[in-house]
Amino acid sequence: MTTSGDGPLVAVVMAGGAGTRFWPLSRRARPKQLLPLTGGRSLLRLAVDRVMPLVSPDRVLVVTGAEVAAAVRAELPEVPAGNVLVEPCGRDTAACVGWAAWRIAAASPDAVVLVLPADQVIPDGAALRRALAAAAATARGRGGLVTLALRPTRAETGFGYQELGEVVGREEGLEVRRVLRFVEKPTRERAEAMLAAGTFRWNSGMFAWTVGAIRSEVRRLLPALAGGLDRLCAMSDDSDDFLGAWRSLPAISVDFGVMERAADVSSVLVDFAWSDVGSWPGLEEVLPAVAGGVRLGDVVTLDSSSNVLVSDGPLVAAVGVRDLVVVATRDAVLVVPRDQAQRVKELVELLRAAGRDDLL
Amino acid sequence: MTTSGDGPLVAVVMAGGAGTRFWPLSRRARPKQLLPLTGGRSLLRLAVDRVMPLVSPDRVLVVTGAEVAAAVRAELPEVPAGNVLVEPCGRDTAACVGWAAWRIAAASPDAVVLVLPADQVIPDGAALRRALAAAAATARGRGGLVTLALRPTRAETGFGYQELGEVVGREEGLEVRRVLRFVEKPTRERAEAMLAAGTFRWNSGMFAWTVGAIRSEVRRLLPALAGGLDRLCAMSDDSDDFLGAWRSLPAISVDFGVMERAADVSSVLVDFAWSDVGSWPGLEEVLPAVAGGVRLGDVVTLDSSSNVLVSDGPLVAAVGVRDLVVVATRDAVLVVPRDQAQRVKELVELLRAAGRDDLL
Repeated sequence: MTTSGDGPLVAVVMAGGAGTRFWPLSRRARPKQLLPLTGGRSLLRLAVDRVMPLVSPDRVLVVTGAEVAAAVRAELPEVPAGNVLVEPCGRDTAACVGWAAWRIAAASPDAVVLVLPADQVIPDGAALRRALAAAAATARGRGGLVTLALRPTRAETGFGYQELGEVVGREEGLEVRRVLRFVEKPTRERAEAMLAAGTFRWNSGMFAWTVGAIRSEVRRLLPALAGGLDRLCAMSDDSDDFLGAWRSLPAISVDFGVMERAADVSSVLVDFAWSDVGSWPGLEEVLPAVAGGVRLGDVVTLDSSSNVLVSDGPLVAAVGVRDLVVVATRDAVLVVPRDQAQRVKELVELLRAAGRDDLL
Repeated sequence: MTTSGDGPLVAVVMAGGAGTRFWPLSRRARPKQLLPLTGGRSLLRLAVDRVMPLVSPDRVLVVTGAEVAAAVRAELPEVPAGNVLVEPCGRDTAACVGWAAWRIAAASPDAVVLVLPADQVIPDGAALRRALAAAAATARGRGGLVTLALRPTRAETGFGYQELGEVVGREEGLEVRRVLRFVEKPTRERAEAMLAAGTFRWNSGMFAWTVGAIRSEVRRLLPALAGGLDRLCAMSDDSDDFLGAWRSLPAISVDFGVMERAADVSSVLVDFAWSDVGSWPGLEEVLPAVAGGVRLGDVVTLDSSSNVLVSDGPLVAAVGVRDLVVVATRDAVLVVPRDQAQRVKELVELLRAAGRDDLL
């Protein structure tokens, strides 16, 4: 058995998020990654389309949750159904990427893996592919764990940062630097200082590594997870044993559990436009501006500006309003000031407590 | 032929309004009077229920438009279908009450007529009936044209006023006074002066008169209308001639065309709670207050106050909003600050111009 990374390129698409921040458009059975938030196809469909020129459909693995697995398979008809790995419940991203690595290792122990979130927006697919090719080449040639490092455009306090050190390579014309350390969601002051320093970048949540490298680091840093994954790989996915073993996996993010403590992490520096569309106002990063805001679907306005107006069916008619988020679906309508859009999560909790499961 | 007013009491319910101010709940086929704006039955149904103890269903006449006639008949199954008079197009209220009077005169020339708008809210039906009985008794005994005069509760600039003179009678314990003059929608200063004077009251749009009295005044003051009504009464309602003759009627309100110029007008002074629910914020006059605003239908809120939140189906979820009107139906959602609620009319015009007839 070789783990050299001379083998095939495999893309692992992480499509497990619930995305309650996009209620009422997002529901349990239709989370954020299944929504057409840029106006056309779903974020998942776009994510797979972006990577497809690098990786054939049978080498795309999608990790998702039980409630959305059927919808994910329907959205990606060209991906073999068996390539959609179903997590019985969420165990955070270390378990997600670990499980994918363990599964890939069984068939292709020398594979190189690209890990891609399903719910990001990257308009320039060619630029992404170039960066992923550079990351894969780095993972193959140099080894270690590789990430894409995004150029920060604002002092964002909701993202993780990384400090970059010396140049360790150049692939596809892109610089590769050693990652000195990671900084989790910072304070406003800290974020501004990092932005000013120029040596910090945003984590992208995108990774490249050989199956051998990630398995070795998971085994070293998270032995309980590695042991659990060993046991899971000996079981059938739909057995009761599998469910129990999955539930017993430690729930920790790949950032905290692996990346921050890994022996050797390098980053490909990328400059392409990127958004994680973290909330309704985040649509402004990915849709064309209309009257200082954005509009998606059937919307009409009179004397209104700086609003996020979204319809999934009913006409949204706004008169004389400013700085408001309005989202209308067939069975629910949300109205919230844009600077309180993150409170949608509270609202979803309220509906859950009130037994309004039909709307979740 | 007698026109003495010794005959039966007949109620004429004016149900012809379009009510675009209640879009998106109101539509061409479902105008304001057909909406359950107080939470239960439609305003029309409530208007007929209020008067029914005074007048049997076969003595209720409803005047309405062609687009809503079927819905009106369905809403009032106990009213004979032939009692629903259908205006081919709106010709304002003088034509409406005139046509009813001419039609009633053919069968009951000595009838006393109560004229009642279909779209007002009057919670105390007994108080209204007492006032209507007093008005009918005044019309029978004293003659002339009789109205109900509402106690003004604010310096409203959207209503018509009347100045009251000497007491000319007392019926059912209610004072009846001569009307000295009418004042149409006043300026703010004028409205405040009238409120302070204490001798002015609001027009109610409710009238009582004998068929003989109203016909005589219409013939004297609006001879073109009277001539047109003479011709209409000789025709079948569904003939082409009828349509043409109706269209040629002068369009003028009963207030401008008749009341302001009539020889003898008296008013029954009433104090009951009353609202014409002229706009979405007007719902606050007729619904219980919730968090400084009103709510109708499926509504949930977080940290929101002083809003008018109305659902005709979809859940309306409001987070952190103030002084806003939100109205959601299956196919359209309106969002407008409460102090701009009258701009709904502009919006309806915009939709009409855009060919969105499906939403009107």
